[in-house]
Amino acid sequence: MTDKTTDKPSATGRIPRRDGRGTLGAAPIFVLVEPQMGENIGACARAMLNFGLSGLRLVNPRDGWPNEKAGAMAAGATIVIDQTRVFDSTVDAIADCQYVIATTARPREALLPVLTPNEAAPALKKRIAGGEKCAVLFGGERSGLSTKDVMHADAIVSIPVNPAFASLNLGQAALLIAYEWAIADDNETFAVPEPEMIPAAKENFERFFAHLVKELDEARYFYPEDKRVNRQNKLKAAFQRAGLTEGEVRSLRGVIKALVTKRKQD
Amino acid sequence: MTDKTTDKPSATGRIPRRDGRGTLGAAPIFVLVEPQMGENIGACARAMLNFGLSGLRLVNPRDGWPNEKAGAMAAGATIVIDQTRVFDSTVDAIADCQYVIATTARPREALLPVLTPNEAAPALKKRIAGGEKCAVLFGGERSGLSTKDVMHADAIVSIPVNPAFASLNLGQAALLIAYEWAIADDNETFAVPEPEMIPAAKENFERFFAHLVKELDEARYFYPEDKRVNRQNKLKAAFQRAGLTEGEVRSLRGVIKALVTKRKQD
Repeated sequence: MTDKTTDKPSATGRIPRRDGRGTLGAAPIFVLVEPQMGENIGACARAMLNFGLSGLRLVNPRDGWPNEKAGAMAAGATIVIDQTRVFDSTVDAIADCQYVIATTARPREALLPVLTPNEAAPALKKRIAGGEKCAVLFGGERSGLSTKDVMHADAIVSIPVNPAFASLNLGQAALLIAYEWAIADDNETFAVPEPEMIPAAKENFERFFAHLVKELDEARYFYPEDKRVNRQNKLKAAFQRAGLTEGEVRSLRGVIKALVTKRKQD
Repeated sequence: MTDKTTDKPSATGRIPRRDGRGTLGAAPIFVLVEPQMGENIGACARAMLNFGLSGLRLVNPRDGWPNEKAGAMAAGATIVIDQTRVFDSTVDAIADCQYVIATTARPREALLPVLTPNEAAPALKKRIAGGEKCAVLFGGERSGLSTKDVMHADAIVSIPVNPAFASLNLGQAALLIAYEWAIADDNETFAVPEPEMIPAAKENFERFFAHLVKELDEARYFYPEDKRVNRQNKLKAAFQRAGLTEGEVRSLRGVIKALVTKRKQD
């Protein structure tokens, strides 16, 4: 995992709660993938802090980082801007996360569960209560998240905008997700998953899947090439939905190795 | 009621629904009181249309109307900008409305019910389903709604921002209210109020209250003067909460007249 900005332990999205309950709450990390305008990064930071979130990560921001315009637009949300971490790839940015949701206006990738913001927020609360590190992916201004980026996620969150006028910008999308996070009832008693059921960190899941793809490639599984992406996505989504634990990911890599050894011996 | 922009019947906030249900839905009108920057008016228009709202009214916009910057920022939400109506006062802007909610970050005016956005949206849906015209008031950038403006409303809606960083701007506040409106379940079977229970239009309620204040003034009720505003607000809130119908407002004006005549004869 490459972090170009700091050696500090990962930003956990923690911020002191000032609602009188006096607790410190863990919160999801917002990951902006290839954001273009500093102003929009600043607007996100501000929207996050408005609703008590502070963990912001950027993947290849167009104008580099730090960004003066982001700082100006954030207007006081310096706690978010100062702790923002920059990564080379989406995979790196979510490597230490166990559960990731991708925001997209076009839930074409029906391979993943599609949630509304007010379904996504309690889902995140529940995971975080169980000790998982969670992230929400947002695409850049021009074209949103790529299918490849979406396929790194466990679920999609789609904001129900007027289909005849669906021009939500980055800051507005971040605002709505942060708002739903803030109002999701955290007094609700969640059925917190057993510790042994916590999914693997994304970097380990990705390594497992890359391993599988590599071996399938050697077996010419993805032939013809023009169907590759589609078939690969379907396969990935199936494993993604399983919420594989670290142990299961290790086991499956053992399974792949065993199968391959068998084949190579044939 | 003064409308400086058009002779057309009031904008009803109707917009074709494109969610496949094929119905036309009435929606609340957003009223921006003394907005300053055209960009923020444009951002409101855009946020409204994002969630299927189109009825926008302005009270004394600082830079006049039409406003080029508002049009540019609205970016495609011209249906909202073109129909925007301008008024000289908050009272005029809501004269034809039966139910009004004021957005304020500081729900100090505890005389009125305080709602969260996800309580306000179904409340508005229910009223509109019963045939009432509803409005949501938003204050200007500098200082929000005045207490006087808030006191024209039937309820307050307060967005639960992080109290340590509560810098929501006009466009963001409008976005959140519009979003909650859009997601409020309109399939829910509301107990629609009986037609005879629909509250009076604000202009008639205001005339009744002004009548009462005038007569109380003649009776030196508000002495000493420094307590006037406070006592007047308390009195107004009590009547406001009653949701007086047109008939009741007429009756109460009769009551005032009767009492005054009695006094003047004494």
